[in-house]
Amino acid sequence: MAVSGLSINLATVRQQYDMRQAVEACLKQDIVAIAPWRDQVHAIGLAEAARIVADNRLKVTGLCRGGMFPAADPEGLRAAIDDNRRAIDEAAALNADCLVLVVGGLPKGSKDIVRAREMVADGIAAILPHARSAGIPLAIEPLHPMYAADRACVNTLEQALDICDLLGEGIGVAVDVYHVWWDPKLYEQIARAGANGQILAHHICDWLVPTKDLLLDRGMMGDGIIDLKRIRAAIEKAGFLGPQEVEIFSEANWWKRPGDEVLSTCVERFHTVC
Amino acid sequence: MAVSGLSINLATVRQQYDMRQAVEACLKQDIVAIAPWRDQVHAIGLAEAARIVADNRLKVTGLCRGGMFPAADPEGLRAAIDDNRRAIDEAAALNADCLVLVVGGLPKGSKDIVRAREMVADGIAAILPHARSAGIPLAIEPLHPMYAADRACVNTLEQALDICDLLGEGIGVAVDVYHVWWDPKLYEQIARAGANGQILAHHICDWLVPTKDLLLDRGMMGDGIIDLKRIRAAIEKAGFLGPQEVEIFSEANWWKRPGDEVLSTCVERFHTVC
Repeated sequence: MAVSGLSINLATVRQQYDMRQAVEACLKQDIVAIAPWRDQVHAIGLAEAARIVADNRLKVTGLCRGGMFPAADPEGLRAAIDDNRRAIDEAAALNADCLVLVVGGLPKGSKDIVRAREMVADGIAAILPHARSAGIPLAIEPLHPMYAADRACVNTLEQALDICDLLGEGIGVAVDVYHVWWDPKLYEQIARAGANGQILAHHICDWLVPTKDLLLDRGMMGDGIIDLKRIRAAIEKAGFLGPQEVEIFSEANWWKRPGDEVLSTCVERFHTVC
Repeated sequence: MAVSGLSINLATVRQQYDMRQAVEACLKQDIVAIAPWRDQVHAIGLAEAARIVADNRLKVTGLCRGGMFPAADPEGLRAAIDDNRRAIDEAAALNADCLVLVVGGLPKGSKDIVRAREMVADGIAAILPHARSAGIPLAIEPLHPMYAADRACVNTLEQALDICDLLGEGIGVAVDVYHVWWDPKLYEQIARAGANGQILAHHICDWLVPTKDLLLDRGMMGDGIIDLKRIRAAIEKAGFLGPQEVEIFSEANWWKRPGDEVLSTCVERFHTVC
């Protein structure tokens, strides 16, 4: 019987499996929802990835990722927009619930985060018509402020939702507990997003104390200090009832363990602490 | 001639000097404003520290630090409040402009950041009368969200100012560029703080890309991506004209260099990039 309400972001087992192997391992654990990364899709080919999804009737809770808009020159921005259009097409081929946007940080050599944020809004506006016509909602994922310089200059739900409100239909947010758990306005902004149907994804993992690496030291649910149940309750109360998607980057721990162990631990923790 | 507008937080040279040596080294560079940490004061004794400050007519831009309120039990909270009262007395003995509050994170075993924040507000309220009667303004320092779990659950200027507004006179904020540079509401909240005379300190350093350690990899001004001049202009426009206080924790770089080199670099960068 399927593990209802659980999705695995395939980055969680990216060191162990390619996409085909990851899906097989998920199915062995009765996990029927996934979120692949584009490099994982490309590695086996889009057609084959789409076939795997369709043949196994997988739910694809998101494709990771579009975004990365701010650029040092107009050519860079144009290239980013073109790449995002391709990402939308891939998301459509995979029948994904959304395309997750990690919006990008400061262009090389820039200290102007205000301008970078304008480039993000402009970039999203440029791809939104294509996303709408493809039927793929865009999910802005606010990233933790420690990534503001080099990965994403959208860093709070409030900021992401302000962009959504500016741009209209076809866009919402991916709420990743790792990025937003600390936010004093978390519950207020979850409610705001829910009221407008703007929650498109719910990512989970945990914040370890201490955290030893800014990027690759995420914890398994239950091993850290995030109040997962409380955040889940708020997200569900706000109207988003989609699967919780486990996304763990863990160079020193989970990426070193057998994939089966990682996935079975995800299932166990999902049932006990999420 | 004194380097006007520059203060050195003595944590910047804590591996090289004790407080007495640090002051001598600062004076050699014509730096006449400092901000010591309490352990540095205790190491030479409060009376001696106060004598050094008075004899050299040093400006003390802040004493670091009070705070650390959230506790697992009432005894812990009481101990924190007592310790903060002593910190206020020490700040008064040193004629400091303010006592900097690093408010504390989650109590051991807790995942309840909402409750931790209540404990912070309650703890500050408990010490505020003592601070007022001692003539020592309390400066809440919002810390970067990557410290929310283990150091400070006050993580944005907006949140800190909401606490200030709740508590009334005698309290404001320390604006440290390292902690707030990423905030989408930075300029709005600096203006808000200035309108109420709530900016009590202005700390500077830089955010390195990449940042290799969550705590001890701060950069020298100019080596990172913070728009220091823009933030300074906003703070000065908001009415705070006090010194910029350099606070750099840098285990792998600046803490390993000769103190004189660190201080002369601070002076040079202060004149060129701040």
